[in-house]
Amino acid sequence: MNPTTKAQGRHYTVADLGAPETWKGHTAQVDSLPGVEVPGKFFLHPVLGLTGMEVSVNCLPAGAKVPFYHSHRRHEELYLFLRGRGQFQVDGEVIEIREGTAIRVATPGERTWRNNSSEDLYYIVIQAPEGGLASPGTEDGVAAQRRVSWPA
Amino acid sequence: MNPTTKAQGRHYTVADLGAPETWKGHTAQVDSLPGVEVPGKFFLHPVLGLTGMEVSVNCLPAGAKVPFYHSHRRHEELYLFLRGRGQFQVDGEVIEIREGTAIRVATPGERTWRNNSSEDLYYIVIQAPEGGLASPGTEDGVAAQRRVSWPA
Repeated sequence: MNPTTKAQGRHYTVADLGAPETWKGHTAQVDSLPGVEVPGKFFLHPVLGLTGMEVSVNCLPAGAKVPFYHSHRRHEELYLFLRGRGQFQVDGEVIEIREGTAIRVATPGERTWRNNSSEDLYYIVIQAPEGGLASPGTEDGVAAQRRVSWPA
Repeated sequence: MNPTTKAQGRHYTVADLGAPETWKGHTAQVDSLPGVEVPGKFFLHPVLGLTGMEVSVNCLPAGAKVPFYHSHRRHEELYLFLRGRGQFQVDGEVIEIREGTAIRVATPGERTWRNNSSEDLYYIVIQAPEGGLASPGTEDGVAAQRRVSWPA
């Protein structure tokens, strides 16, 4: 059962993706496989109305692997592994994955990954146009001068 | 102890951020507070060489709150809550946070959040230029035709 939009306001949208243990029940449509619902992957763009990034939440079961290499046309990718173990490959180089491993991949890098462990592998993938960041850290933020107030 | 760059190749960079339980020991520099190291926040841009997005990993301790509202000049933000409970506010509207809650905030939205629970709150914040996404889902990806090979 895929998440849906839960709430929205003028400047925000909310969805509940569920605990990571539920992510293997989510599905995604993949451009190259029309009509196929890929299990264990869910794209946030449709439910959040994202305009600057695409993000997916993922669960790759124990023993499973991605059956192809891929690169990107315009988007930098960040893979953020939250739980589990596995291996990642870029241009033939192998990188060990564990909880907390973060991997940036530039557009031309040919990437694939696998879960060669006995536990499920949970991760987030983020895409955004390479070279597009206006400024890093907190530089793009603007603090408001009014005091924070919370309902009692 | 903040994470450092662990490995890099022509088209990738790797860092080990550690398990979420270690994130409260990370620190971040904040543009508006020169010389101050904010605990429980760590920006990935410096260790991964990100060019299209900024991402931080965060732990807000039980009972803590962000002491200001902020908006953004050019960057859309996505807050992805991984563990714990709390409350988020955009333009005065209150949103309940739990494990798996994802909130997109548009540039003008005045946002703040708090952990009004008795457990630590873990989350990821992603920034990228609003409106900059080239295409959603898997459309930006290009599958390679060669077969996947892993070392034995």
